Amino acid sequence: MKTILVIAAHPDDEVLGCGGTIARLTSEGSNVYTLILGEGVTSRDRKRDLAKRENEIAELKKQAENANRILGVKKVYTFDFPDNRFDSVPLLDIIKTIEETKDGLKPDIVFTHHIVDLNIDHQITFKAVMTACRPTKDESVKEIYSFEIPSSTEWNGPSSLTYFMPDYFVDVNKSLDIKINALKEYKTELRDFPHPRSLKAVELNAKYWGVKMGLKAAEAFKAIRIRT
Amino acid sequence: MKTILVIAAHPDDEVLGCGGTIARLTSEGSNVYTLILGEGVTSRDRKRDLAKRENEIAELKKQAENANRILGVKKVYTFDFPDNRFDSVPLLDIIKTIEETKDGLKPDIVFTHHIVDLNIDHQITFKAVMTACRPTKDESVKEIYSFEIPSSTEWNGPSSLTYFMPDYFVDVNKSLDIKINALKEYKTELRDFPHPRSLKAVELNAKYWGVKMGLKAAEAFKAIRIRT
Amino acid sequence: MKTILVIAAHPDDEVLGCGGTIARLTSEGSNVYTLILGEGVTSRDRKRDLAKRENEIAELKKQAENANRILGVKKVYTFDFPDNRFDSVPLLDIIKTIEETKDGLKPDIVFTHHIVDLNIDHQITFKAVMTACRPTKDESVKEIYSFEIPSSTEWNGPSSLTYFMPDYFVDVNKSLDIKINALKEYKTELRDFPHPRSLKAVELNAKYWGVKMGLKAAEAFKAIRIRT
Amino acid sequence: MKTILVIAAHPDDEVLGCGGTIARLTSEGSNVYTLILGEGVTSRDRKRDLAKRENEIAELKKQAENANRILGVKKVYTFDFPDNRFDSVPLLDIIKTIEETKDGLKPDIVFTHHIVDLNIDHQITFKAVMTACRPTKDESVKEIYSFEIPSSTEWNGPSSLTYFMPDYFVDVNKSLDIKINALKEYKTELRDFPHPRSLKAVELNAKYWGVKMGLKAAEAFKAIRIRT
Amino acid sequence: MKTILVIAAHPDDEVLGCGGTIARLTSEGSNVYTLILGEGVTSRDRKRDLAKRENEIAELKKQAENANRILGVKKVYTFDFPDNRFDSVPLLDIIKTIEETKDGLKPDIVFTHHIVDLNIDHQITFKAVMTACRPTKDESVKEIYSFEIPSSTEWNGPSSLTYFMPDYFVDVNKSLDIKINALKEYKTELRDFPHPRSLKAVELNAKYWGVKMGLKAAEAFKAIRIRT
Amino acid sequence: MKTILVIAAHPDDEVLGCGGTIARLTSEGSNVYTLILGEGVTSRDRKRDLAKRENEIAELKKQAENANRILGVKKVYTFDFPDNRFDSVPLLDIIKTIEETKDGLKPDIVFTHHIVDLNIDHQITFKAVMTACRPTKDESVKEIYSFEIPSSTEWNGPSSLTYFMPDYFVDVNKSLDIKINALKEYKTELRDFPHPRSLKAVELNAKYWGVKMGLKAAEAFKAIRIRT
Repeated sequence: MKTILVIAAHPDDEVLGCGGTIARLTSEGSNVYTLILGEGVTSRDRKRDLAKRENEIAELKKQAENANRILGVKKVYTFDFPDNRFDSVPLLDIIKTIEETKDGLKPDIVFTHHIVDLNIDHQITFKAVMTACRPTKDESVKEIYSFEIPSSTEWNGPSSLTYFMPDYFVDVNKSLDIKINALKEYKTELRDFPHPRSLKAVELNAKYWGVKMGLKAAEAFKAIRIRT
Repeated sequence: MKTILVIAAHPDDEVLGCGGTIARLTSEGSNVYTLILGEGVTSRDRKRDLAKRENEIAELKKQAENANRILGVKKVYTFDFPDNRFDSVPLLDIIKTIEETKDGLKPDIVFTHHIVDLNIDHQITFKAVMTACRPTKDESVKEIYSFEIPSSTEWNGPSSLTYFMPDYFVDVNKSLDIKINALKEYKTELRDFPHPRSLKAVELNAKYWGVKMGLKAAEAFKAIRIRT
Repeated sequence: MKTILVIAAHPDDEVLGCGGTIARLTSEGSNVYTLILGEGVTSRDRKRDLAKRENEIAELKKQAENANRILGVKKVYTFDFPDNRFDSVPLLDIIKTIEETKDGLKPDIVFTHHIVDLNIDHQITFKAVMTACRPTKDESVKEIYSFEIPSSTEWNGPSSLTYFMPDYFVDVNKSLDIKINALKEYKTELRDFPHPRSLKAVELNAKYWGVKMGLKAAEAFKAIRIRT
Repeated sequence: MKTILVIAAHPDDEVLGCGGTIARLTSEGSNVYTLILGEGVTSRDRKRDLAKRENEIAELKKQAENANRILGVKKVYTFDFPDNRFDSVPLLDIIKTIEETKDGLKPDIVFTHHIVDLNIDHQITFKAVMTACRPTKDESVKEIYSFEIPSSTEWNGPSSLTYFMPDYFVDVNKSLDIKINALKEYKTELRDFPHPRSLKAVELNAKYWGVKMGLKAAEAFKAIRIRT
Repeated sequence: MKTILVIAAHPDDEVLGCGGTIARLTSEGSNVYTLILGEGVTSRDRKRDLAKRENEIAELKKQAENANRILGVKKVYTFDFPDNRFDSVPLLDIIKTIEETKDGLKPDIVFTHHIVDLNIDHQITFKAVMTACRPTKDESVKEIYSFEIPSSTEWNGPSSLTYFMPDYFVDVNKSLDIKINALKEYKTELRDFPHPRSLKAVELNAKYWGVKMGLKAAEAFKAIRIRT
Repeated sequence: MKTILVIAAHPDDEVLGCGGTIARLTSEGSNVYTLILGEGVTSRDRKRDLAKRENEIAELKKQAENANRILGVKKVYTFDFPDNRFDSVPLLDIIKTIEETKDGLKPDIVFTHHIVDLNIDHQITFKAVMTACRPTKDESVKEIYSFEIPSSTEWNGPSSLTYFMPDYFVDVNKSLDIKINALKEYKTELRDFPHPRSLKAVELNAKYWGVKMGLKAAEAFKAIRIRT
């Protein structure tokens, strides 16, 4: 049985990015944990105003708990880095935050963001993960995969610098329903079709990757590093 | 009114790659022509055997005529380069074939294959187009776009060397049905879902690109060169 | 008639990057607006000293007004982000600034910086534009193009990570003179030949891209996204 | 237990590329098969002269048998495509040759060459594998990995077009000796240090990748596609 | 004093690519040799017809002799690979041709084509050079540089796969006139401005690269490999 | 005789990156200077605490002095940018710091970090160098090379965005011992094998690059820009 840690910038990224894979892994007996770095919501204001957004942040935490319970996640670790303002914090602070949780869990596998998403918090999360999981002799993490986040990964312009080019595909035909159910918990984050973060678009996306791999539904990842 | 030339390696590539765009352009009054370089079919044999495949090749030509008529194409030019064996012909022969048709039509816009599809004929077609349409002073072609071919473009391995990273999107919401109808003519080339060359997968693909662009359905292209 | 918004980091970037294209578009009847994010000048000091540079900043604003009037620009929007220190501001602040102006104008087309210029403000401007113009259903912006800035775009080292590889070329043969005249207004920013920001080098650059495209003079852009 | 097929252009490539991994996999109970496309040797002459090189080719086949036996390979399939002249054969012929062997074995995993080695036969082998193993519904191959061949992979010039950038690392600390022993069978192919195809350099290479991954010795691969 | 070998696909490529550099090097005392692989001219016909083009080929050889004499080249080696049809010859034949001349001269430095020019003969020449000059212990060649050929290098579409991104710049301010004079010998190959292969465009190109490097005129190269 | 400036983020980077090359250059008579931007050590704490780390920082400075003396460096310039927190400082401050030292020395050649190392300080150092050494007419720096830092350059994930692809190789067979001796001074920074920053791994690395270039030992660099 493997231990898996999902490291996301914002509540809902863990479901959007790899909800089907999480549901499949937990149903097969793996222990999955979720780490969410950012508080969410506060980027809607010109100045970060925690008091004003207190209720919404609390609500979002509850949604995260519910969504992850549906996926079978053992525990959700949340932190309060400022939403869409990770670039106002030294990278090192984020690295150390990840290291502390990770060193306690000793995961075998990490799922996290894509190296150059449009969203600055996603980019910074990836960078912090890469430093926190350096492949030294005693590092527990043997595999790192990047996921895509609809409405961020695909909107960064079509250059080889930024493009998501997956090479690792997980059959989620049996767990896609659970992903959709988990996503429904994030009521405040969903949008109407054809927005990429609508339920219908998320389902479409899984079928799209399925078609490319001879499957009915798949989640797509970029293998960053596998040691075996 | 613009004149458009679609340059495809095999019968059905023109519909798969840009059928919705063709249907939209012809309905808006443009003159669209299709040039198909390869004979199709003969790659199924260990040795190319034209006699054995004579009927199938004729049947395929008829399918091409029907499909293109549905899309509103003015004329289909067909040639008989050996199917999936374009690499056994000097590139220069293909260049000169394209030049002859092109010089007669003086198109403003060319749609053709992606630079590094899995299929060797697609690759060679792209290269030949680039030479045939060099941007000299008197060249009529002002825009070149690459399209994707499901079951070839996505199956070449996920490197920046080969990946299709589109930057030009055409809204085909109103013409997607016509594309699907045209595709139905290519009975012998279609496969069952979830194969990328099934009707359902082709429709899914258009919706996928639509979602990425805030549209209900789109075809995706890589802009190779636009002069304005 | 299209509405166009040029989003530049510093006064003079709008002329260097797309002055010939602006002049051509306004002469053809389009409405062009310029948004300049940075105050200019203050990076010459070890510590930003607004008082000391007050006159120069005011002078630069006047130059911008004059240059843009020559090009036929309807209005110049200026902001005071710290010159060459955009990295000391959260990206989100710049995004929101762009969104406010953009939402008022509802432009069809945006011209802005290249994704990885040497200049950090240029990089950040590009990133902010990409987020401010996400291709959702109701977004007015249908086309985004990156321009080059002589003495920044070409000085970032020759890797595929940073290189400017244009695919969209605008014939500026008839408007190059107007660009040069507009540029002359930016007296304090011009340098002597062979500096890339000399009048002679700017003209040479337009001829260089022209030669590549069978034209007498051209401006070169990277098409980031076109929806049609 | 997995079935593995190693597809190499020339005798010795299978050992150089993944000998340590093969030895580890067979010791763990997997069934490994080797397919060698080229005859070897004949490229030493200006014109291919099979009669002249008959003995050497036979000797090389024997070396291949011995080397693969040491690694625990179940069977070696050899073909006689012309050495360093795969570009004189239509790609389709090589694809069909691979398909025939592969369809009999139904392997789960394929190891093969890097997409753009200096050696033209390596390049063509990769392309043929990608077509022969298209990820359709019924395709047995679920994983494809590219290996490096010392004295070919690293000598193709340092561009992102050609560079070997591995992301999949196999610990071969316990099987490196077996690889070296297998390699010794290929007497005629080995060179003196510091040539990359010397025994000492091959060992050094495994330690180099080991160091990068916190291991004593490793073989490095590029994951082309993993379906799970 | 260094020995330099320029390896070009067609007569005139050596002047277009590095004529200014050759003239500077010979004036500084280096020994420069030119190797031209292709016969030229015959690609103008649908079928290669040596008899028909005999006079033109002879004329072109004479032009090559004159042009290289002006540059100070010691000797021009010419071969008769079929013009624009190098892909109909096994790569190995071209490799061996280069090796024979090179092994006689033992050059320190090689200048040759860019890895992915539009012209197929240029591409193949580059590949052959890379194999012929493998960096083994006894290889004389310590430096390899790629040059650009106006009307080929820039017309292959703007992807990181094909783009010429130079990192090595030679000041040719004092030798640009000699390059232009040498180029005038190739009367049959020159075109009118704004064609890239016009005298005026060639001069413009040198100034363009000069501007980028703080020089009055420069030739631009991609350093492929330098051992020191 | 050339003047060389090595610009490093942290004490020991100058030895790890190009210690063998420095030792060779000084032994051949060149004047080499080292500029170290960061204070080191303080990133070990959650909050930077200069008082707590005062002794270690002083010790590190002494190690730097000793190591550089062994290499024959004329002078070490040290600054106190916060360790692993360069992203909390405006890039412009680092640029100006480099410019001041550089303008005093007028070096011909600069060695510095790789554009996208894992370490954020390395990335920022590269960017600052590129701006500080813009290739204007009067700039003394004619050559810029990037070096690799074991345990940072190779741990950033295998994409063309980040990968170190060297093209410039320096034979350090005679100076490798001196590099190792210099490195021994940095007692507090060394790790046990197989860590990349162990003495044995550093030696292995030099032999690895040697093998690729037909040499017994080499240091590898990426040529960023060479003007000659």
